[in-house]
Amino acid sequence: MRLLILNGPNLNRLGMREPDVYGNQTLKDLEERLLAYGKIQNVDMNFFQSNHEGELIDILHDSEESYDGVVMNPGAFTHYSYAIRDAIASISIPVMEVHISNIHKREEFRHTSVLAAVTAGQIVGLGFHGYELAIQAIMKKVEGETQ
Amino acid sequence: MRLLILNGPNLNRLGMREPDVYGNQTLKDLEERLLAYGKIQNVDMNFFQSNHEGELIDILHDSEESYDGVVMNPGAFTHYSYAIRDAIASISIPVMEVHISNIHKREEFRHTSVLAAVTAGQIVGLGFHGYELAIQAIMKKVEGETQ
Amino acid sequence: MRLLILNGPNLNRLGMREPDVYGNQTLKDLEERLLAYGKIQNVDMNFFQSNHEGELIDILHDSEESYDGVVMNPGAFTHYSYAIRDAIASISIPVMEVHISNIHKREEFRHTSVLAAVTAGQIVGLGFHGYELAIQAIMKKVEGETQ
Amino acid sequence: MRLLILNGPNLNRLGMREPDVYGNQTLKDLEERLLAYGKIQNVDMNFFQSNHEGELIDILHDSEESYDGVVMNPGAFTHYSYAIRDAIASISIPVMEVHISNIHKREEFRHTSVLAAVTAGQIVGLGFHGYELAIQAIMKKVEGETQ
Amino acid sequence: MRLLILNGPNLNRLGMREPDVYGNQTLKDLEERLLAYGKIQNVDMNFFQSNHEGELIDILHDSEESYDGVVMNPGAFTHYSYAIRDAIASISIPVMEVHISNIHKREEFRHTSVLAAVTAGQIVGLGFHGYELAIQAIMKKVEGETQ
Amino acid sequence: MRLLILNGPNLNRLGMREPDVYGNQTLKDLEERLLAYGKIQNVDMNFFQSNHEGELIDILHDSEESYDGVVMNPGAFTHYSYAIRDAIASISIPVMEVHISNIHKREEFRHTSVLAAVTAGQIVGLGFHGYELAIQAIMKKVEGETQ
Amino acid sequence: MRLLILNGPNLNRLGMREPDVYGNQTLKDLEERLLAYGKIQNVDMNFFQSNHEGELIDILHDSEESYDGVVMNPGAFTHYSYAIRDAIASISIPVMEVHISNIHKREEFRHTSVLAAVTAGQIVGLGFHGYELAIQAIMKKVEGETQ
Amino acid sequence: MRLLILNGPNLNRLGMREPDVYGNQTLKDLEERLLAYGKIQNVDMNFFQSNHEGELIDILHDSEESYDGVVMNPGAFTHYSYAIRDAIASISIPVMEVHISNIHKREEFRHTSVLAAVTAGQIVGLGFHGYELAIQAIMKKVEGETQ
Amino acid sequence: MRLLILNGPNLNRLGMREPDVYGNQTLKDLEERLLAYGKIQNVDMNFFQSNHEGELIDILHDSEESYDGVVMNPGAFTHYSYAIRDAIASISIPVMEVHISNIHKREEFRHTSVLAAVTAGQIVGLGFHGYELAIQAIMKKVEGETQ
Amino acid sequence: MRLLILNGPNLNRLGMREPDVYGNQTLKDLEERLLAYGKIQNVDMNFFQSNHEGELIDILHDSEESYDGVVMNPGAFTHYSYAIRDAIASISIPVMEVHISNIHKREEFRHTSVLAAVTAGQIVGLGFHGYELAIQAIMKKVEGETQ
Amino acid sequence: MRLLILNGPNLNRLGMREPDVYGNQTLKDLEERLLAYGKIQNVDMNFFQSNHEGELIDILHDSEESYDGVVMNPGAFTHYSYAIRDAIASISIPVMEVHISNIHKREEFRHTSVLAAVTAGQIVGLGFHGYELAIQAIMKKVEGETQ
Amino acid sequence: MRLLILNGPNLNRLGMREPDVYGNQTLKDLEERLLAYGKIQNVDMNFFQSNHEGELIDILHDSEESYDGVVMNPGAFTHYSYAIRDAIASISIPVMEVHISNIHKREEFRHTSVLAAVTAGQIVGLGFHGYELAIQAIMKKVEGETQ
Repeated sequence: MRLLILNGPNLNRLGMREPDVYGNQTLKDLEERLLAYGKIQNVDMNFFQSNHEGELIDILHDSEESYDGVVMNPGAFTHYSYAIRDAIASISIPVMEVHISNIHKREEFRHTSVLAAVTAGQIVGLGFHGYELAIQAIMKKVEGETQ
Repeated sequence: MRLLILNGPNLNRLGMREPDVYGNQTLKDLEERLLAYGKIQNVDMNFFQSNHEGELIDILHDSEESYDGVVMNPGAFTHYSYAIRDAIASISIPVMEVHISNIHKREEFRHTSVLAAVTAGQIVGLGFHGYELAIQAIMKKVEGETQ
Repeated sequence: MRLLILNGPNLNRLGMREPDVYGNQTLKDLEERLLAYGKIQNVDMNFFQSNHEGELIDILHDSEESYDGVVMNPGAFTHYSYAIRDAIASISIPVMEVHISNIHKREEFRHTSVLAAVTAGQIVGLGFHGYELAIQAIMKKVEGETQ
Repeated sequence: MRLLILNGPNLNRLGMREPDVYGNQTLKDLEERLLAYGKIQNVDMNFFQSNHEGELIDILHDSEESYDGVVMNPGAFTHYSYAIRDAIASISIPVMEVHISNIHKREEFRHTSVLAAVTAGQIVGLGFHGYELAIQAIMKKVEGETQ
Repeated sequence: MRLLILNGPNLNRLGMREPDVYGNQTLKDLEERLLAYGKIQNVDMNFFQSNHEGELIDILHDSEESYDGVVMNPGAFTHYSYAIRDAIASISIPVMEVHISNIHKREEFRHTSVLAAVTAGQIVGLGFHGYELAIQAIMKKVEGETQ
Repeated sequence: MRLLILNGPNLNRLGMREPDVYGNQTLKDLEERLLAYGKIQNVDMNFFQSNHEGELIDILHDSEESYDGVVMNPGAFTHYSYAIRDAIASISIPVMEVHISNIHKREEFRHTSVLAAVTAGQIVGLGFHGYELAIQAIMKKVEGETQ
Repeated sequence: MRLLILNGPNLNRLGMREPDVYGNQTLKDLEERLLAYGKIQNVDMNFFQSNHEGELIDILHDSEESYDGVVMNPGAFTHYSYAIRDAIASISIPVMEVHISNIHKREEFRHTSVLAAVTAGQIVGLGFHGYELAIQAIMKKVEGETQ
Repeated sequence: MRLLILNGPNLNRLGMREPDVYGNQTLKDLEERLLAYGKIQNVDMNFFQSNHEGELIDILHDSEESYDGVVMNPGAFTHYSYAIRDAIASISIPVMEVHISNIHKREEFRHTSVLAAVTAGQIVGLGFHGYELAIQAIMKKVEGETQ
Repeated sequence: MRLLILNGPNLNRLGMREPDVYGNQTLKDLEERLLAYGKIQNVDMNFFQSNHEGELIDILHDSEESYDGVVMNPGAFTHYSYAIRDAIASISIPVMEVHISNIHKREEFRHTSVLAAVTAGQIVGLGFHGYELAIQAIMKKVEGETQ
Repeated sequence: MRLLILNGPNLNRLGMREPDVYGNQTLKDLEERLLAYGKIQNVDMNFFQSNHEGELIDILHDSEESYDGVVMNPGAFTHYSYAIRDAIASISIPVMEVHISNIHKREEFRHTSVLAAVTAGQIVGLGFHGYELAIQAIMKKVEGETQ
Repeated sequence: MRLLILNGPNLNRLGMREPDVYGNQTLKDLEERLLAYGKIQNVDMNFFQSNHEGELIDILHDSEESYDGVVMNPGAFTHYSYAIRDAIASISIPVMEVHISNIHKREEFRHTSVLAAVTAGQIVGLGFHGYELAIQAIMKKVEGETQ
Repeated sequence: MRLLILNGPNLNRLGMREPDVYGNQTLKDLEERLLAYGKIQNVDMNFFQSNHEGELIDILHDSEESYDGVVMNPGAFTHYSYAIRDAIASISIPVMEVHISNIHKREEFRHTSVLAAVTAGQIVGLGFHGYELAIQAIMKKVEGETQ
């Protein structure tokens, strides 16, 4: 099994600022943790982070060829990027939406996801662990579990 | 570790109607699956389902004494029960919010959770598997993981 | 044919207060009138009134076993109980929504029914007679009339 | 007793299109059915259908002279014709509002009736049978039933 | 000087119903009063009342040829007829908007006029006298007063 | 008969700026014109202008003693001064609301009057002439005309 | 091929007023231009203009018998006539919605079309030429083009 | 004089959590304090707390028989329970609404009370002392004070 | 202890108009009653009433020097004076908000207080007695009661 | 004549997914069809597709130099990219907005175009044919047709 | 050059309360700092502070005679005083709007300025320094800089 | 001191179009003016302009290393780019928001800044001079001025 771990805008800043919201571990820490987790779960994974909406769309399009699923933290694009929504809807592999912090505890504008309706599911508020659960979720989906 | 699995209104009807939304397995099937899962994870768990908002509040209050955490599918109360919100906020153990279906794909009123801001996290759209992931999430929380 | 006549919160207060809105006949008067009407129409019926949302949900679930249909006056739950909405949607027998007064002549919040989309139909503003018409409506539904 | 059965815009198209919404019987079928029903109930009735808001207002004004009540399906005027609302409010005989389909299951704009506050009552979602129940409702009103 | 006095839907019912809102004088009483007033002011006037939006538009279009101005009580069309708005905007003679009752004391929907932005002015809440003042207003406008 | 002509904030600036909206005549011009008009109509009148909400309220309270009615142009207080609304409601003499320009042609916030529901009527968009019509309106009111 | 060119309220005023919005050519100019265009395209066409919502509905109903499609400029009815919406939905031939001016550049209320969801397509802002393109669009539709 | 002190959902948790909002005294402390206060004021009182909306409605209905008034802290039901609103409206003894904290300083949803329009009055933000003032308020009401 | 009793706009009209809303006692009656009450409670108090927002702000600023607290009925300023809100927030002594009538039973605009979030508490709907309770509330606050 | 055909986000996915919405022809098919059409019409055209908002803005800026007009399908950017709106407004050549599907039949968020107010016109719901009509529209614009 | 520095409601409280929002320097400190700054910049300035909306309007009107521009911190009037808006619009000298704190970081109601549309510009969030920059801005305006 | 001057989408078009809004000087003119200004103020500065949201985010992230502050005109991204908001929030150097035109005088959508809450301050409506004032603002911030 092969997954793409896709992080959106400002997630390259993880661990550098606002540790009370996002913790003090970096994106590199996250990726290393997930790599280790992938080994245990027998999942290959690639990582991509971009602050460019267009790049995230391009890579979502391409992912269909090379991956069994995508774990995506769309960052602030969650709240307004209908273009990313259409990109997710245009591919046949499952895309899991992950948010590190509990977005419902924060500013009003963060309570709405314009992507959620086209994703395979959402995992919110569980820190880095949320990515691991999302990986499991895609594994189940791919194995054909229906309930 | 000891968890309470709390299901809200109409979840006793699982598997009986609307299988396209909720699948055709019953609440009993869910509970058996989770029991089996709990054995593997070394987690004791109790189950409670109620269509009564007041009972759910009572049991949330009591849960603090006997459990390390709660996995809760609040059913339709998700969308208006500020009383359950206050109950969750009033206890010190983590409460995970789980929804079997992707509520963001359904009617407008299901897109808003009045509970989310006071829960430990949300897992949405992953069927019965979502409960298992929520159990893991609480295990991590209780173990003191911070990121 | 066997029907359940289900009255929601505060309908036990019929005839005691606000006679300008609800008339001065009591719930007992209503039930006796409907019993008499049932004899003429050859319909058995049971009555249940509750101020508890959870009890109304429980009895809706159970009604599927014992009745051909439900005539329901949901009282104020009409305007916010998504849990009752889900209960109605979860059973296969028809549920008719009845309101004694013309709710559209009253406070703003009474103009919206969160249940209407999942009921078999609504009868509004016709006093106790509305229940009799609702009984007829279910009889027609059960007889298989399609238009 | 003498009633006017008043059908609004596009109801002349009944049975010709959208049979999944309105069934496949025509306006003529409806009128014949109601005539037969009227004979049993000892009610004379006249029928009028118009796609013109102004004609519906004119005939509502005139109806007071010749009828004991009006059964009206206002079609799409339900949702915006404040002029028809004023016409109904300006006459002293009861006007029952009938909708063939359950308007609350359909597009958002169909969930609001600007007429309901000035009618004698509403019957929604019961197909052609709804007209028969509305006839009964007016009979009761005219007989002076108060509850 | 020659004016058209144009009354919209349900104003033919003046004096017949709701005397607490509109008084107990009829449309004929109004027209006779205005005729008498016109004689004093040396103003010829014609009267037209219709419940048909289309007729009101037709006559507005034609009025430009034969009149120096229009005094119009648009009735309920005030609140939604953008077609009448466009008709008023399409003619070069001044149109005064008159309302007999104080529409701001009544239902919410009556507080908004979709016509007001294209009329020469509004006179509200002054009963039949409001028409006389509107006649004066047009006389001033036609005389070329600018302030 | 004795009237108070009450002008609100910024009306002392009449004729000095924005002549395209308010014309180029001054408040003094208005007062002289109305004085002349008053002589013809046999109406005594006093003038008061203030930019202070509190002063307008004080003088409204006092006006009941000394006047038969008030013609008021509330300026921008029209749109938010609930305190002036209460002052108008607290006195027994009629208060006519006048606006020189057609407020419905201007910014959105000018389309709503929080005062209109408690005034005797509104005259909008007729320049200085509107004050003269308002004087007539009060004269009619005081003479006891009811329609 | 046979088309109906249907113009709604106030379009009979084309070329007479507001030339900055609608140009200075008349409805007759438009019809002659389209007739000439129809000859080139081998399309027969009839013209109808009405300020009456009811007439537009009647003719839409009838059009199904005699035409292959309708090109309609609904004028201001675009923004509120749910009755015309239902009429369009009730016929099986394609109806193209055309607006001469760019309605999105004008008042807020013109930005919404309650008809668009049931038409075959919209062409906006292209002057008289828009009608010619709409004719082509229907020709393509009728020829069975699917993309 | 005999009063019912009625506390709604989660008030049994007083003093256990969120002491910054509700203080650190328990429900028992509150009841003892009020009992002592009642002795001084010569008021008998009973206490009831429930997390069940239905129970609160039942006891409100029954209270009319046994009490002269009710002091009620409806907890989160304040913000959505139209059923409790109807219950309060259905009884003839005065019901005072009390909130311990200043609900207007907290989350947006807590700023609206759907009950307030049918209560005898509200006391907000005064801690336990608010109950004592509410007791006085009912005493005054029962003594027949009108201002 | 020394308190300021501060009454806002139109409260000088108490007892003169709208006795069904405010009773028929005057502001002087209120002040005498409170003076008498103050003697019993051993509280000195000064009275101030103004229809001027600015004066109310000035006196609030000054009150900090001379008083232990303020009982304020802000009248209609309750609903829009953010300037008074800032004045209350800028002083360190407690300000209690009092409303004679139950503002939640009246017009929509009276249901919102822009001041409530910065006051020490609110007492609503209890007539003149509400002022007495507010005096008690401040006495408790000043005595340092925390719950 | 030289045109730019500009396709926005996800239009590179045409024909690969959601054929019920967009048909099963690819972007390449579209471009070849338009090239052929261009030859007949004597129009040179270049094609550009991007999922990057910034690239679309850059190319719009540059287009003024090299083209006589732009036919643009902005994809999901239609609904939120005010930056593209400003880019269109900043160039002097006409930009036609084209949508393949009838966006008014789809999700609520697709009903609004933030670009429409600054484009030369819109063509909606006509599949690939819409591009051809847009090409004609620009040809007319460039030829200087004014109506 | 001669400027008026105009401070609105509660700014006389600067430095006395809420130092975390407004710092701990007083209005007098501000004025002294600006005087010193004015000497360097060769600008004469007068200071005025008022909590009275009417006084601020009066002085704005008068300022045109004596000053080249106004630097105004309107305090809470920013958010609702349409009367001050009209006063600013009625004078020909530039008025700069200054806010000491970043109003967009604070309560929702502070995010909107009803004045901004008629001022020469806004400077927000820069403490006392904002006044100095506003002085420079007016100097530039008066010198006739256009870009 | 070293500053980054960051211009967002379409600001490369300055001086080319819409000179009534933005003046007729180009971006190059702006940069030269600011360079000259920087020399006087002893401030080094770099310039960057991009139409790509992602590039603006990247450069904001990097700016922390090389600059003491950022002066940013976000163009249309001001109104919807929550991703840029998060980027600003993620860096520790001050970011000043500048708008050349008075955005509050223009279209509704330009009245809201989703960035303002996380910037160091805003300067609006002062043309190119606004950038110079923003440079001063950052200099003050960096010098540690707190009021």
